[in-house]
Amino acid sequence: MRLVMIGLGRMGGNMARRLMKAGHEIVAFDRDAQAVEKLVADGAIAASSVDDARVRAGSPAIWWVMLPHGEITDGMVDQIAAGGSAGDVVIDGGNSFYKDDIRRAKALAEKGMHYVDVGTSGGVWGLERGYCMMIGGPKDVVQDLDPIFAALAPGMGNIPRTVGRKDGTDPRAENGYIHAGPAGAGHFVKMVHNGIEYGLMQAYAEGFDILKGKASEKLPEDQRYDIDLADVAEVWRRGSVISSWLLDLTADALTADGKLEKFSGNVADSGEGQWTIEAAMEEAVPANVLTTALFARYRSRVEHTFGEKVLSAMRFGFGGHVEMPQ
Amino acid sequence: MRLVMIGLGRMGGNMARRLMKAGHEIVAFDRDAQAVEKLVADGAIAASSVDDARVRAGSPAIWWVMLPHGEITDGMVDQIAAGGSAGDVVIDGGNSFYKDDIRRAKALAEKGMHYVDVGTSGGVWGLERGYCMMIGGPKDVVQDLDPIFAALAPGMGNIPRTVGRKDGTDPRAENGYIHAGPAGAGHFVKMVHNGIEYGLMQAYAEGFDILKGKASEKLPEDQRYDIDLADVAEVWRRGSVISSWLLDLTADALTADGKLEKFSGNVADSGEGQWTIEAAMEEAVPANVLTTALFARYRSRVEHTFGEKVLSAMRFGFGGHVEMPQ
Amino acid sequence: MRLVMIGLGRMGGNMARRLMKAGHEIVAFDRDAQAVEKLVADGAIAASSVDDARVRAGSPAIWWVMLPHGEITDGMVDQIAAGGSAGDVVIDGGNSFYKDDIRRAKALAEKGMHYVDVGTSGGVWGLERGYCMMIGGPKDVVQDLDPIFAALAPGMGNIPRTVGRKDGTDPRAENGYIHAGPAGAGHFVKMVHNGIEYGLMQAYAEGFDILKGKASEKLPEDQRYDIDLADVAEVWRRGSVISSWLLDLTADALTADGKLEKFSGNVADSGEGQWTIEAAMEEAVPANVLTTALFARYRSRVEHTFGEKVLSAMRFGFGGHVEMPQ
Amino acid sequence: MRLVMIGLGRMGGNMARRLMKAGHEIVAFDRDAQAVEKLVADGAIAASSVDDARVRAGSPAIWWVMLPHGEITDGMVDQIAAGGSAGDVVIDGGNSFYKDDIRRAKALAEKGMHYVDVGTSGGVWGLERGYCMMIGGPKDVVQDLDPIFAALAPGMGNIPRTVGRKDGTDPRAENGYIHAGPAGAGHFVKMVHNGIEYGLMQAYAEGFDILKGKASEKLPEDQRYDIDLADVAEVWRRGSVISSWLLDLTADALTADGKLEKFSGNVADSGEGQWTIEAAMEEAVPANVLTTALFARYRSRVEHTFGEKVLSAMRFGFGGHVEMPQ
Repeated sequence: MRLVMIGLGRMGGNMARRLMKAGHEIVAFDRDAQAVEKLVADGAIAASSVDDARVRAGSPAIWWVMLPHGEITDGMVDQIAAGGSAGDVVIDGGNSFYKDDIRRAKALAEKGMHYVDVGTSGGVWGLERGYCMMIGGPKDVVQDLDPIFAALAPGMGNIPRTVGRKDGTDPRAENGYIHAGPAGAGHFVKMVHNGIEYGLMQAYAEGFDILKGKASEKLPEDQRYDIDLADVAEVWRRGSVISSWLLDLTADALTADGKLEKFSGNVADSGEGQWTIEAAMEEAVPANVLTTALFARYRSRVEHTFGEKVLSAMRFGFGGHVEMPQ
Repeated sequence: MRLVMIGLGRMGGNMARRLMKAGHEIVAFDRDAQAVEKLVADGAIAASSVDDARVRAGSPAIWWVMLPHGEITDGMVDQIAAGGSAGDVVIDGGNSFYKDDIRRAKALAEKGMHYVDVGTSGGVWGLERGYCMMIGGPKDVVQDLDPIFAALAPGMGNIPRTVGRKDGTDPRAENGYIHAGPAGAGHFVKMVHNGIEYGLMQAYAEGFDILKGKASEKLPEDQRYDIDLADVAEVWRRGSVISSWLLDLTADALTADGKLEKFSGNVADSGEGQWTIEAAMEEAVPANVLTTALFARYRSRVEHTFGEKVLSAMRFGFGGHVEMPQ
Repeated sequence: MRLVMIGLGRMGGNMARRLMKAGHEIVAFDRDAQAVEKLVADGAIAASSVDDARVRAGSPAIWWVMLPHGEITDGMVDQIAAGGSAGDVVIDGGNSFYKDDIRRAKALAEKGMHYVDVGTSGGVWGLERGYCMMIGGPKDVVQDLDPIFAALAPGMGNIPRTVGRKDGTDPRAENGYIHAGPAGAGHFVKMVHNGIEYGLMQAYAEGFDILKGKASEKLPEDQRYDIDLADVAEVWRRGSVISSWLLDLTADALTADGKLEKFSGNVADSGEGQWTIEAAMEEAVPANVLTTALFARYRSRVEHTFGEKVLSAMRFGFGGHVEMPQ
Repeated sequence: MRLVMIGLGRMGGNMARRLMKAGHEIVAFDRDAQAVEKLVADGAIAASSVDDARVRAGSPAIWWVMLPHGEITDGMVDQIAAGGSAGDVVIDGGNSFYKDDIRRAKALAEKGMHYVDVGTSGGVWGLERGYCMMIGGPKDVVQDLDPIFAALAPGMGNIPRTVGRKDGTDPRAENGYIHAGPAGAGHFVKMVHNGIEYGLMQAYAEGFDILKGKASEKLPEDQRYDIDLADVAEVWRRGSVISSWLLDLTADALTADGKLEKFSGNVADSGEGQWTIEAAMEEAVPANVLTTALFARYRSRVEHTFGEKVLSAMRFGFGGHVEMPQ
């Protein structure tokens, strides 16, 4: 199939390459002309503008937009839609908020155009390993795009099969992509994925914190342990219940430096963690772990909260706190 | 009644004074001879040592120990017990761990001595307002000490009566003291009191943090408010659902300086918060608010946790985090 | 002043009565004609419709809308605006979301009309005690309405003055109302107030849970206490650090029935708790206590979460969990 | 080497078998004579009692105790110690509390005996895959036992090597076992492992809860998704950041029944989760995720907490809650 790729950063560029390897044709556009040139060197068709891309796109045009979420993606979708024709498909492969997808899908549907949202996990290894994808959009449109998704996905590989998974069920999940539902469903599932990711990361972080703190001189001497954290991460990778890819990464980092001294500990968050909590609240689902994991990141980025000063001020107020009973 | 007061700090000294005002006799001992002298000036009988106090104590001797919890109190109870006689009473008015009370009560019972634990709230205002007390120990012993507790307690004052509280029920609670149960029960109730206190304080702290953060320039301009926090605390004191003594203290502090600049925000915790969580876990009671309030204090006292560095290291590991999808 | 009161439920009706007592004139409208009649009996001017109210409102018309938040209030504001004139003032005294206030204020401003949002605490006792109010809107408009706010507010009463509060500062806070900022600021402060309220309530709830659980037969016999919870609540009201109005209510309830058997424990939440968390996330403020308090309510309303079944399924999966090490 | 295995349940029995396969000799004892017979059929030497085992143990005797933690293990260690000789080694392979290890190691050291604690992960798959082990005890004793640990461990297998792991460093971690430190360190690391496990499980549980709740009819119709959870678990296993063994188990369960109807959702916890939180508190490490994961299990096992009734009672108290503003 022929597909216009808009946004040739690390993700978009590598996806285009993986698609071309599988025999698809890529019309490539990026504001950065050098990024376009590089991809042309790998076999892509250059486009000098969105309008130029449209000319080369074929009919119906299939657009894969791979830009930072929010206003930039919105602007591009609008621009594509402005010159689009019925039957064209716009795929947003970035990290959009799923409610933006719903809005965009409605706007495009008024022109007979289709909108498909794709949440992607797999990061920088995707070119080689393939991209795990969660897809939202109209059933038949997603079906028509299957050759594209199949080419991007990792495939079954050598990951052991899930117990009870039968032949004859939808094979896409086992190949690393799913059609999650209508507009927004793909990004919604990817959003929850990232929410979970925050929780998993924080669980490991707290555990290693407790291991490290066990060397504290404030503890009784026979209860102090100076534990080799790299070795712990390593041994947990090997047959334990908590082995995971995130633990593998932790083992890499601790093996390089058991004190992690090059890291500040100011931890950013992208929007997905927050959106996940908003979704939980809209459903009245208690999500304590995912929330507290997000808040730990907020707290990591300031020296002190104002709230902590309020606590100090109250303690000063009831005064006796330096004495015995409060 | 005659009572030996051991430990004449701000709490012990003022309790002794309040007891003397009510007509009780105080034998006063402290390692700091000046503290003894001061209290003698207010009418107490000086004791130069524990043994000296014993001579002056009368029979049975009643000892009120008002020392920092832990080993110091343990040592004093042992010392008193070593020379004590059947029928003597040792009252621990400090912040002991209730399991220590249980242990001490058993040890004293072997000698026919009695042990009473008293958790006290009221801090530095107690001399004037009286002390709110939670008492553990044998029923008849606590009853015999009633004149002492009645003198220390605030009494009914002008606090409106609880709806449905009937005459004829145990009047002690309305007068500001209760017999909570056998050995340790007094300190247990006081411990939970302090656990709740942490939770309440953190709730206010987070609320004021959110109010203050609303001035942030990262928010859309029409959603930014530069709110006068002292005025907010003030107005909430006046007829709102969340009025409380802790809010009164917050209003004091914010009125003095709305930015609380003299406070660092490094917030200490005494043992009670931790013990409360241990008790919750022993009972399998979920205590999320009390726990997270305690943990906020831990976090306030370090620049960064090691766990935050682990998070940064993982994020670095999956690499694509500076790009779009993770 | 003359003011149209729309919505004569328990809150609106009593506010109207308090205003009339202070000499203000009320034009009263409610869909329920009986509610109008009742207020007319107390001195109000009846209005049979919004248009009828407009005729009797005077100029500029001042409208106090006291309806459930959301679409109903939106509809009423639209209806008032449709027939309104420059200079008219619409006051929303309900529990609107502050971003709705911002939107409405902009819409009214296009017609030269003013919008004022008032968050109110004080509930059913307000008629007698007065209403604690947090006000958002243009400075001069709020100033012009001062006679109304002053009449509704509790006034200084016999609540002790905050330490350091000086004569000559804005006296409104001490009288129980504040001008918090531009459109939405009143409801924003009230929203955070309710968020804090959830946190405070949960702190007490957890504490009493731990006290009650201490009677469990699973604990060692000498560590079991059968604590009289009504007495505990009572004694904490009297001189302790955690005395508050919410504790007073708890004492009332526990005095009536120490087991609280008439309560199911399915705890509702209104929108403010959720909005508070959203605000915290927009500001990147960690709000663990307020969030977990909200989530405890979600959890209280279901028999089991699906997540708990997922946990059970995983435990079944790694199988050894009924045996020794996992 | 020759080793006495005490406790031939699923774990102890399979460990003995794995050791015999590697050429070690097992003296087998269990209160259940049938369990002994089974292992004898696989090549073990039968022991009819602890004393009988001692006779057959060789010198120095090496005892591997694989019993439920707490009093039962304590009793067995005492019994072994009572008849033991200097140089004998007692290995506790169960889930003991690390402070019990410290105590036991001291008691045994007085007789010249050695104590080694081994935390084991790997559960029912261990016979085939090997056991991931965390070991505490004296360095030379642990070194002398290396042939045993090497035989039990999974070995390097086909798990990719951690980046930066160099030849020449301690090879044990890569083979699936570590010497974590002195007495108790093995069980301490295993305890934290289980604490993390709770956190990871809860993160997935909350995520799937949010996905499932997205079908709720309370949501706007275009924001409802009826997501196939088995497919989601499957696709996340394939190249996503959150792939893990726990996710594999979740995929198994959801593939069998996407509604998990056979599970009640009453989730047990063993002691390790609680001990992990106690350790965190002793170190003043904030461990919000691990704690809230534990508390979610507590909450799952009761219909309602008493705390929830306290909340309901307060809400009833301020009364206006069914009306508008509180």
